[in-house]
Amino acid sequence: MNQLATLIESVQPVESRFAVMAAERHAGLAKPPGSLGRLETLGAQLSAIARACPPPAIANPGLIIAAGDHGVHTQGVSPWPQEITTLMVESFCSGRASANAIASTTGTMVAVLDAGMVTPAADHPVVRRADIRKGTSDLRVEPAMTEDECAAAVDNGAALADRMIETGADLIALGDMGIANTTPSAALIAAYTGARADQATGRGTGIDDKTLDLKIEVVADALARHGASRDPLGTLASLGGLEHAALVGVVLAAAARRVPVLLDGVNTVAAALAAASLCPDATGYMIAGHQSVEPGAAVGLRHLGLAPLLDLELRLGEGTGALLAVPIVQSAAAVLRDVAGLDELGN
Amino acid sequence: MNQLATLIESVQPVESRFAVMAAERHAGLAKPPGSLGRLETLGAQLSAIARACPPPAIANPGLIIAAGDHGVHTQGVSPWPQEITTLMVESFCSGRASANAIASTTGTMVAVLDAGMVTPAADHPVVRRADIRKGTSDLRVEPAMTEDECAAAVDNGAALADRMIETGADLIALGDMGIANTTPSAALIAAYTGARADQATGRGTGIDDKTLDLKIEVVADALARHGASRDPLGTLASLGGLEHAALVGVVLAAAARRVPVLLDGVNTVAAALAAASLCPDATGYMIAGHQSVEPGAAVGLRHLGLAPLLDLELRLGEGTGALLAVPIVQSAAAVLRDVAGLDELGN
Repeated sequence: MNQLATLIESVQPVESRFAVMAAERHAGLAKPPGSLGRLETLGAQLSAIARACPPPAIANPGLIIAAGDHGVHTQGVSPWPQEITTLMVESFCSGRASANAIASTTGTMVAVLDAGMVTPAADHPVVRRADIRKGTSDLRVEPAMTEDECAAAVDNGAALADRMIETGADLIALGDMGIANTTPSAALIAAYTGARADQATGRGTGIDDKTLDLKIEVVADALARHGASRDPLGTLASLGGLEHAALVGVVLAAAARRVPVLLDGVNTVAAALAAASLCPDATGYMIAGHQSVEPGAAVGLRHLGLAPLLDLELRLGEGTGALLAVPIVQSAAAVLRDVAGLDELGN
Repeated sequence: MNQLATLIESVQPVESRFAVMAAERHAGLAKPPGSLGRLETLGAQLSAIARACPPPAIANPGLIIAAGDHGVHTQGVSPWPQEITTLMVESFCSGRASANAIASTTGTMVAVLDAGMVTPAADHPVVRRADIRKGTSDLRVEPAMTEDECAAAVDNGAALADRMIETGADLIALGDMGIANTTPSAALIAAYTGARADQATGRGTGIDDKTLDLKIEVVADALARHGASRDPLGTLASLGGLEHAALVGVVLAAAARRVPVLLDGVNTVAAALAAASLCPDATGYMIAGHQSVEPGAAVGLRHLGLAPLLDLELRLGEGTGALLAVPIVQSAAAVLRDVAGLDELGN
């Protein structure tokens, strides 16, 4: 817990005066003012994050996929067996998942954290293991984990982000894997934003109407069990997953080191809400990669004040939507760095 | 003209049975069915274009920026002096324009065609010159060019696309540069879609209300002068720009060689409409990179039946919006090529 408090304290707010400098710089570039639209506001955010205008180039993007299993799976909220979590982590290791295909295309390194799967993956250089517990408890009937376990998962995520940043990563994209994890995500989003269970809960990987009704009930029961507490860590431990907690650590560690964080779908948005609740200054480091189909993602992004860069009707997770946005973020920095001023034209 | 007819005839329709194969392949990959949303439909289109499933990897994207000047500039429809067209082309050559910054980020080679600027750019390996005429006539009062000039510009664009594809380009993004060219674009879009002048005309680089009113009048006058003719080439010659005509050639040559074409903003959409009007089968090769702020772009894309991949409020042109979509197209192909099947999980 002390480690978490130290991490939170190490996050400094982004500095908006560099965003103002970026806007001024944009106005003087060889293009009509404002003509690059959201690429310009994104460049301003990168400047505010880096405390530099132009911001540094983003040359080494990284993706951290946190994986975990969920006691609530026993409620029948997902049609997929829990073993798929482990099999997909092995697929990330062998480089044959959707995330790998898009990571290769966008030149993004991939690291995986087993934050707490029921069946640990085989050893592989790409995977780190948190060794806290194998899956959470059923959040419908009891806290998913203890606060100590939750804090330990946060630490693990932070440690992996630190290592990735030390090896050169200058943008961290978030990814997740965990069969049934849109259920804890819905509960977290409802708890942190005040939305109702049915507003935050969606079809995840594609469940039918009956399963959706059940899932909404499960989320509502979990929220009722949890009660009115808004304590950030207590809420995360009570309603979240180990991979959510690990991603909170990734967000906080990246923010502490002034590295922008690129959110993916609903599970990473739930983690981002937890991170923002623990540390409001972390929000300035977040960029919404895409608009997931999952309704909770929109609820969460609105609460965070973030507008997604892409809307391609994705609902896969793994970081796929964040990865597709990587070149947009890189381009926003490149424009501020590399484009000539109007006054330089013809010289 | 005979050359144009030959080019049009060489475009074969895309083959939808390969799109069906792609959908089947997607359904068997290690992810929930449909979870990659529009990336899946894009992959299906790439398969239909290539007549292969999976489609080939997109390893060498290229951007062709066609530049030209416009007699209608004399009407005061743009606040920018015409010399900017030439200065920006020189900026593309020196690698310091917005398009270059984003092209570098996305690994895209850039070629520029001077389709007819008033002041030719200095010689540079990146620029080809069409040498047809220096700018068009004022389309408010007379045809912008003759049909022969227009067909020659189409040929020049096609020749440059052919050369780029011969050197390995496997995706062609369209870009444009031409002070005042959103005026001919509005006229072309209105003529090809049947939209009114005020529906197709926008603020371009950011004109004030008074200039916008004037611009709508100019477009309406041009449409009235042109009359009811729907002859595809005649309309392009009467209302278009030399860079529009050149981009029509790029589209047709790419389609003839089964290479996907990525549209940018309103000027490339106007060219795409002309290409589709000349050769309806070319539409199957088109991918809409982004939704420009310019209203005519939405009108044109709707007419073509294309949904843009990005909406980042861009209104610059140069190919910037198309370039930002390049990694999405590459990813769509990569997913179909590289992701494991569900039946391979755990093996």
